[in-house]
Amino acid sequence: MKLTLAEPKYLKESISIISDLVNEARFKVTKESIELVAMDPANVAMVIFKLLSSTFTEYDIKKDVEIAINLNNLKQIMRRAKPNDMLTLELDPDNKLIIRLKGNNVRTFNLPIIELDEKEQKIPELKFSVSVKVPSAVLNEAVEDVDIVAESVAFIAQDKEFTISAEGDLSQAKVEMKEGDDIKIKANDKARAKYSVEYLKKMISGSKIADEVSIYFSTDYPLKLEYKTVDKVMLSFILAPRVEND
Amino acid sequence: MKLTLAEPKYLKESISIISDLVNEARFKVTKESIELVAMDPANVAMVIFKLLSSTFTEYDIKKDVEIAINLNNLKQIMRRAKPNDMLTLELDPDNKLIIRLKGNNVRTFNLPIIELDEKEQKIPELKFSVSVKVPSAVLNEAVEDVDIVAESVAFIAQDKEFTISAEGDLSQAKVEMKEGDDIKIKANDKARAKYSVEYLKKMISGSKIADEVSIYFSTDYPLKLEYKTVDKVMLSFILAPRVEND
Amino acid sequence: MKLTLAEPKYLKESISIISDLVNEARFKVTKESIELVAMDPANVAMVIFKLLSSTFTEYDIKKDVEIAINLNNLKQIMRRAKPNDMLTLELDPDNKLIIRLKGNNVRTFNLPIIELDEKEQKIPELKFSVSVKVPSAVLNEAVEDVDIVAESVAFIAQDKEFTISAEGDLSQAKVEMKEGDDIKIKANDKARAKYSVEYLKKMISGSKIADEVSIYFSTDYPLKLEYKTVDKVMLSFILAPRVEND
Repeated sequence: MKLTLAEPKYLKESISIISDLVNEARFKVTKESIELVAMDPANVAMVIFKLLSSTFTEYDIKKDVEIAINLNNLKQIMRRAKPNDMLTLELDPDNKLIIRLKGNNVRTFNLPIIELDEKEQKIPELKFSVSVKVPSAVLNEAVEDVDIVAESVAFIAQDKEFTISAEGDLSQAKVEMKEGDDIKIKANDKARAKYSVEYLKKMISGSKIADEVSIYFSTDYPLKLEYKTVDKVMLSFILAPRVEND
Repeated sequence: MKLTLAEPKYLKESISIISDLVNEARFKVTKESIELVAMDPANVAMVIFKLLSSTFTEYDIKKDVEIAINLNNLKQIMRRAKPNDMLTLELDPDNKLIIRLKGNNVRTFNLPIIELDEKEQKIPELKFSVSVKVPSAVLNEAVEDVDIVAESVAFIAQDKEFTISAEGDLSQAKVEMKEGDDIKIKANDKARAKYSVEYLKKMISGSKIADEVSIYFSTDYPLKLEYKTVDKVMLSFILAPRVEND
Repeated sequence: MKLTLAEPKYLKESISIISDLVNEARFKVTKESIELVAMDPANVAMVIFKLLSSTFTEYDIKKDVEIAINLNNLKQIMRRAKPNDMLTLELDPDNKLIIRLKGNNVRTFNLPIIELDEKEQKIPELKFSVSVKVPSAVLNEAVEDVDIVAESVAFIAQDKEFTISAEGDLSQAKVEMKEGDDIKIKANDKARAKYSVEYLKKMISGSKIADEVSIYFSTDYPLKLEYKTVDKVMLSFILAPRVEND
């Protein structure tokens, strides 16, 4: 296996975001992509990450491979990648992942492949009554707005309106969005569900890899956030709802 | 009551500075201005804040109102205001202060009005023998200079000279200013008084709302710092002196 | 004694770096330079600092002087120097070091001269088999690269190649440099020695005063790093090796 990225940004940022939710995970490397599906330790959130082979300048793989790795260790190495470094991933015979960064000089890191008992995660099939598309920065601002009053937040949609709302013991916050040039809202029915602000704050870092985010939810049903750059990368999150009387 | 600011900066920065000194306070809203007079919990410093109605793009008030509020909570909301947001303050029937930020979308916060037992603070009548006007940045630098050697600092003036001086156990620091293009010094007599550096460090944040500061003091007498932007905002502080043998 | 610097940067940055390694030290002021030679408290690293008289705009000294001082206190004062301040050093009759910063106004600090029992440090005579010259930024990056896997690092050179390599419990990192336009490598024999990353991280701050660094070492022998700006300043470090089975 030898995979080379001329633009390490997508891998670097994604690993940094994912490692905030998951400690250890298994990458599946196939002809089409590098893929990761993992649950956070509390079983509240799922991360789905796909980096397409078309993002790579070199993508040489004989057969499908699974690579389980400690994401924090990988993140620390990824942080050392500068925007213009050529990043190469290889497997060495001793069961190590070799990460090579080539800029003015060559820096080589290797990381042990770990054993993961955990069985493969299945992506649940979900049907959502609401879909919203907004600039990533708008969702970021909204989550930070409501964060100052409460730990859980309601996502509410009806017709062409989408509201994020939170109630603290004494204070309230509410962010209202309407269909417009850069905001698309489709709500089949009125829908309302509550989610953890703590998890949302980790997920909105997806804004680092895509300028837009797709938001999907239904009443008292999981939320899905999807950050996507066409032909390159997809990072999405599924978050369990909080029951109304949290 | 409905008050709208097109430029939330003055309110935002002032609340942030005041909340460093005072936890809860009462705003008086009159035809002319929003005003706050409060003592810090240790009774060492007084804050006087006035935001003139001319700063507002909409200033609709039927009768004078008093609004007591937790300043930390208010500060957290104010922080969410971006420079070009329209900020609207309203009172709702349930005794809440409604703060609306309007940018690309509308964000609404509300905060409970609290009960404040504390009686109204009177601004003391003070006569000073020294008045100095300097760029705010100059006072900031001077306070930071003396901060490295001691916890209390002497303000000394004579004729056209103004000195800020501090003595630690072993080290000393002294900043000397002379009348000049951007420094005006008027000292009727030689004057000298000592003040707490810790309080001064909080007060000099007034530099965020005005480029100049007026400094008033007399021998062993309170200090007054005044930050003012004409027709808009005035933030001033009165600080009790430290006795010479501190 | 009266010494004036129009450009306080070299003194300011050097003191900041040295104070990370040494708490108290003795400066020797001679006709040629201000010089400091000091060991860190653990006796693992030596600092040699020389600020040439040609750096000063005024360098008035009747006879050689020794000034022992607390470097942390000096650093705090130096931090207050702005890039264009005129910095003057004087000795007052009461055995204090007077530091005057002259910008728009005059700020005067004084610091007690301390007693240092410690005898004068001698610079050891060292012969190195390897000498390498690289841009300071390259050494900085390399030390930060290996820092993520281990606490000690091997410096290895052979012919025209210089490698910095580290092995953690599970991970490895290796930075390879080759002779090139801005990298000069001279290795008489193959050499390999290990050094503490913690100390190296403090020393590479020398990059603040020079764009290039000279690296000297031999097998299981001390390391010398030298940061130099011609006719102005020299800051060098000698670091004891770690035994191979650390």
